[in-house]
Amino acid sequence: MPAIRLALVPGEPAGVGPELCVRLAQQPRDHELIAFADPDTLQAAAAALALPLRLLEPGQAATRPGDLGLVAVPNPVHPAFGRPDPRNAAAVIAALRDAAAGCLDGRFDGLVTGPVHKAVINEGGIPYSGTTELLAEQAGREVVMMLANDVVRVALVTTHLPLRAVADAITPDALERTLRITDASLRAGFGIAAPVIAVLGLNPHAGEAGHLGREEIDIIEPVLTRLRAEGMQLAGPLPADTAFLPAKLRGFDAVVAMYHDQGLPVLKFSGFETAVNLTLGLPYPRVAVDHGTALELAGKGIADPSSLFAAAQTCARMARLRRTLSA
Amino acid sequence: MPAIRLALVPGEPAGVGPELCVRLAQQPRDHELIAFADPDTLQAAAAALALPLRLLEPGQAATRPGDLGLVAVPNPVHPAFGRPDPRNAAAVIAALRDAAAGCLDGRFDGLVTGPVHKAVINEGGIPYSGTTELLAEQAGREVVMMLANDVVRVALVTTHLPLRAVADAITPDALERTLRITDASLRAGFGIAAPVIAVLGLNPHAGEAGHLGREEIDIIEPVLTRLRAEGMQLAGPLPADTAFLPAKLRGFDAVVAMYHDQGLPVLKFSGFETAVNLTLGLPYPRVAVDHGTALELAGKGIADPSSLFAAAQTCARMARLRRTLSA
Repeated sequence: MPAIRLALVPGEPAGVGPELCVRLAQQPRDHELIAFADPDTLQAAAAALALPLRLLEPGQAATRPGDLGLVAVPNPVHPAFGRPDPRNAAAVIAALRDAAAGCLDGRFDGLVTGPVHKAVINEGGIPYSGTTELLAEQAGREVVMMLANDVVRVALVTTHLPLRAVADAITPDALERTLRITDASLRAGFGIAAPVIAVLGLNPHAGEAGHLGREEIDIIEPVLTRLRAEGMQLAGPLPADTAFLPAKLRGFDAVVAMYHDQGLPVLKFSGFETAVNLTLGLPYPRVAVDHGTALELAGKGIADPSSLFAAAQTCARMARLRRTLSA
Repeated sequence: MPAIRLALVPGEPAGVGPELCVRLAQQPRDHELIAFADPDTLQAAAAALALPLRLLEPGQAATRPGDLGLVAVPNPVHPAFGRPDPRNAAAVIAALRDAAAGCLDGRFDGLVTGPVHKAVINEGGIPYSGTTELLAEQAGREVVMMLANDVVRVALVTTHLPLRAVADAITPDALERTLRITDASLRAGFGIAAPVIAVLGLNPHAGEAGHLGREEIDIIEPVLTRLRAEGMQLAGPLPADTAFLPAKLRGFDAVVAMYHDQGLPVLKFSGFETAVNLTLGLPYPRVAVDHGTALELAGKGIADPSSLFAAAQTCARMARLRRTLSA
């Protein structure tokens, strides 16, 4: 069986993405890593960290420490550490699109991405609301954002919405879609044969029998009842504050939260360093770091690579499982 | 100096409150504990747990293990473990009101309360939305609900509101009041001379410079600017997911969250057993357990008393500090 091949996109070239990719390249691995990036940018990061970096043609197997496969995506402007240049925005997006295209057409088994600087991309004249959205559109799929570490996996029904827009966005369709994608991904991506999913309520105390809001009764419970009849194992709607008690969490394979700040504080509190951001629902596994560009740290070699390491390991594991399940 | 005297209210007589009070009475202590309760209910709980309980007149100092002061508040119906009777609702509320009145007139130095069953009180024909609200109204004070354990203290701007009502409830007045009461309580109640308070944003990523909502810009930041000018140390508005990172939390004396499910999941995840519920802004310290009536456990002796023990210790410490500061 050929090795698993992961496409790696560093993200913002002036941030910590390139140096984290260089550090990832030093790690022993059982899969190939191929970066979609500007070779000069990667070598500048390697030089700044005094680390070896051998960039190989995509045809050569990049599995040895210090080796990294390369599909060159040149930056028009050589980036200075910590100072993003909007003129590189198109190259950042091209790298993402090309790598994703390679996953869609089967040349790669999964996509690992570093942090992108949203404002700089938009300043560069490219409409961009996030890599998750970009990949979903390119693949023509509906997706779910999941954040995961060793303690908990949290999937979100809504993501980057103003709080006052959240309640109206919790529709039966949105919830059903999120639950179906999450359930399918726990099976196919994580190898969990009969996943148990905790579904949070929208309101405090999950609405307290209608006293604190009716969305649990009118929207969430009917969807859960319907999907349970199909065999999905869904607990809830649960009060968000007590659903995360460690003793309860151990009984769940994932928690589906209704909105961003309901689900992510515990995730980040319980293990930010190794947390990763997964896009569920794509035809390939995509795993990203769960941190930003950290411009102030770029080029200094002090940025923590744990999240990128965890992202690559998670992506490789998911890709291997997907291959096994489809064999 | 006379001993600190704490009023203790068990809450729902058919729940775990009475037996937790009996267990609390077994603990060595440096303060007096006086229960406002039905003596038969307390003795039944002691008998069920095979623990000694000597109920003393309020004038006798109840500081020895096994001793508990008593102000009798009879239940019309002897409660069966696990089966609340609405006919006892008036007695539950009377015990709270009488104990609070004793704190207001200086006969007691603080109030410790067990769990009340909201629905049963309402079934008993008594409008009741929570003990916090009852005590605020009785004292004629505006209050703030704070949940605290050994890891973090979380104060809430809004508490038991449907999520769709939260955004409109974040007014400059509500935020300023919450911050003033929290700041004053950290000084007077916890002895922190120059408290640092983290203030969360309302929207994900604290609104991301207005892209994900404008309440941070229009409401929260102006209030923070005004209060900082008075000398308050306020960080924020901070994104809720990263504000709770352990490294950041260590720099804050409290976190002010905009709403229930933004602030409480981390609090409960990080230490539910010893979490307590404080009412800030009353003229006396009030500390409650952070759990419910646990009807299914009542009378079995297996309910975890940690939260009530922590509540009594916290209340005694706050009462002592208050006495010292006012001396």
